Amino acid sequence: MKHRVVVIGAGFAGLQVVLGLKGAGCEITLIDRRNHHLFQPLLYQVATTLLATSDIAWPIRALLRERRDVTTLLGTVEGIDRDTRQVVLRGGGRIPYDTLVVSTGARHAYFGKDAWEADAPGLKTLEDATTIRRRLLLAFERAELAEDPAERQALLTFAVIGAGPTGVELVGIIAELAHRILPAEFRRADTRKARILLVEAGPRILPAFSADLSAYAAAALARRGVEVRTGAPMTECSAQGIVVGGELIPARTVIWAAGVQASRAQEWLGAKGDRAGRVMVAPDLTLPGDPAVFVLGDTAHVVSDGKPVPGVAPAAKQQGAHAARTIRARLAGRPGPGGFRYRDMGNLATIGRNAAVIEYGRFRLKGGLAWWVWGVAHIYFLIGARSRLFVALSWLWVFLSGQNSARLITQRELPKDR
Amino acid sequence: MKHRVVVIGAGFAGLQVVLGLKGAGCEITLIDRRNHHLFQPLLYQVATTLLATSDIAWPIRALLRERRDVTTLLGTVEGIDRDTRQVVLRGGGRIPYDTLVVSTGARHAYFGKDAWEADAPGLKTLEDATTIRRRLLLAFERAELAEDPAERQALLTFAVIGAGPTGVELVGIIAELAHRILPAEFRRADTRKARILLVEAGPRILPAFSADLSAYAAAALARRGVEVRTGAPMTECSAQGIVVGGELIPARTVIWAAGVQASRAQEWLGAKGDRAGRVMVAPDLTLPGDPAVFVLGDTAHVVSDGKPVPGVAPAAKQQGAHAARTIRARLAGRPGPGGFRYRDMGNLATIGRNAAVIEYGRFRLKGGLAWWVWGVAHIYFLIGARSRLFVALSWLWVFLSGQNSARLITQRELPKDR
Repeated sequence: MKHRVVVIGAGFAGLQVVLGLKGAGCEITLIDRRNHHLFQPLLYQVATTLLATSDIAWPIRALLRERRDVTTLLGTVEGIDRDTRQVVLRGGGRIPYDTLVVSTGARHAYFGKDAWEADAPGLKTLEDATTIRRRLLLAFERAELAEDPAERQALLTFAVIGAGPTGVELVGIIAELAHRILPAEFRRADTRKARILLVEAGPRILPAFSADLSAYAAAALARRGVEVRTGAPMTECSAQGIVVGGELIPARTVIWAAGVQASRAQEWLGAKGDRAGRVMVAPDLTLPGDPAVFVLGDTAHVVSDGKPVPGVAPAAKQQGAHAARTIRARLAGRPGPGGFRYRDMGNLATIGRNAAVIEYGRFRLKGGLAWWVWGVAHIYFLIGARSRLFVALSWLWVFLSGQNSARLITQRELPKDR
Repeated sequence: MKHRVVVIGAGFAGLQVVLGLKGAGCEITLIDRRNHHLFQPLLYQVATTLLATSDIAWPIRALLRERRDVTTLLGTVEGIDRDTRQVVLRGGGRIPYDTLVVSTGARHAYFGKDAWEADAPGLKTLEDATTIRRRLLLAFERAELAEDPAERQALLTFAVIGAGPTGVELVGIIAELAHRILPAEFRRADTRKARILLVEAGPRILPAFSADLSAYAAAALARRGVEVRTGAPMTECSAQGIVVGGELIPARTVIWAAGVQASRAQEWLGAKGDRAGRVMVAPDLTLPGDPAVFVLGDTAHVVSDGKPVPGVAPAAKQQGAHAARTIRARLAGRPGPGGFRYRDMGNLATIGRNAAVIEYGRFRLKGGLAWWVWGVAHIYFLIGARSRLFVALSWLWVFLSGQNSARLITQRELPKDR
């Protein structure tokens, strides 16, 4: 009987395990709640009308169509029975495993303020992205209909909470939309008067970058009309607006880019986790005491060279590849690759048209050239020639025409309130 | 004061009125419940995973960005006050008019069996298309998970009700998906065993075409593995399946392409309507007794040369252009163009790869050449170079790679039942 590998979650880590086990002679079952693998680093561009959903997501089973050793299941995991070595699906189905890989990612977290989610949605899934896109575009539409100037200004005030790469990228595009693309299209509301705030509790934006690139990014955002507020956390958030540093700012559109919480895997496994719910793993990425179970990516608390590994796509991919090598070695009876070591691929973030920052070890780049490098790198990392062609053409189109193309509001009904 | 024209509905008819009034010196307000103009003739391709939503829909205010005489409002109309000449919006806003154009389209109708809608959704909006796409793709996913062979076969049975162009186009692509594209991707379910039914109450499919093209289309569908059932209406529809000609066919996915009902305009206007709720209009497309109100497109019952004008895009556009000419003549004090005459632009329908039928007067074309003509014609009718380029590339990609690209299931949660 073939060795049965079950992988839960087809994100960067899980998919990499499956790719790494090609030809290993396993019987692989890949389970995901969604039918697509998502390129999360560009999700903010779907949220801000630059790309279509199908540009950055691919049906998992289409990606693995040639792999006869892989069965893809669309299903929701309800638990893991480690005694009988079975994954329990909603509906009662049970999938037995010899080796289990748990790579179910993370969701945004509100540091105990879960009530904020309704007014400050986060950005992790395609649905999150289309929700944010709808709110963003509806705010401008409602500003056009508003009679009261204060209400109009509140509708034209956008706040992004958290100044990591996602937060910076979001405010950059929102500023471009409000100040450059939309003014010609509205007759009553002056979208050039839109306020766009980037709120960061820490002392500076892009904290993972060096201080000079962080300062450059802050200046570039200010030139684009973004108000950068550092050093004060958001202390309240409601449908009326936000409170930052004691000041109430009426804002009808708030986006959360501040924190994440690992998926429920810790609970399923009955394992020890860190404060963010990530499962503490052994150096070889397995569950301490249960080498049949790997935990990878944003679900795992991994330490490399004494430092926690960041929750970024390259780290997840490297972990997936490492787990696949370990499984192959075990099957062959060879010694495995041992402990996981993270190879830092550097940091990239865009700020807006012709502005980005790149840091790779001591190498630093900013401005227009960094922006082009950023674009080429991201196209390279997309899956398949079709996505590369369509994303490249979409960007080129926006660059040349100045028109964002994915600006549809889709929903059943125009909601009565936000 | 400028002449105030209010247009309700930015479909083919309403948009054409606005375009036709360019430079006429009016103050135009265009109101729509949605923020986009939709190219409905290709909607079935969004429903069946060939095109992305943004390929066939455009933000209305972006289309009219250069038109300083046009204000676009995203709003829901609740009524029309013809005494004071005002349009009443949800929320209480009132928009005064001197000339009113009502072009609010149609919805699918179930001939009094409204309960069928839950199990047999129709296809009129982008949301309808993504709903149908989700159901279609989920049926295959559930077939892969099903343990019971009868349940699996019911999940792999797809029925389209109504064999006009939309119904024919839908079954053509579903057959291609099930029999040619998906078999390589599923391990447990054999999607080649999928049953695809086209149910038509009348004696033949594509009744608007001549008998020989209709027979060709039926034969082409049969070759593609579609079961064509003519001469018997669907008499029951539930989550379990459908009843046709007394036979119960277990089918988990049913799509309605059989009938339409005009929007609520008749009620707003207190006007006389036909059985499908279309407002009876005077030969110049105005409301009898109220020349300040035009009713156009699928909302209107228009007669030309003694025959009712069909509810197709070219007819709506011609009516919009006619209304714009009439309004311009009135403003200039010139005699208007008089009664509307419909110029029949012929009928086109695709059946599947390399098969289509075209009829224009006595000219008839079928097969591969018709398919290419159909494609070029539809690309020509799209709005803007970007959509033309992207749709052409998408089709070319599918043609060369054999892979449909828009196969994402997006939703909040995997629903518990269909």
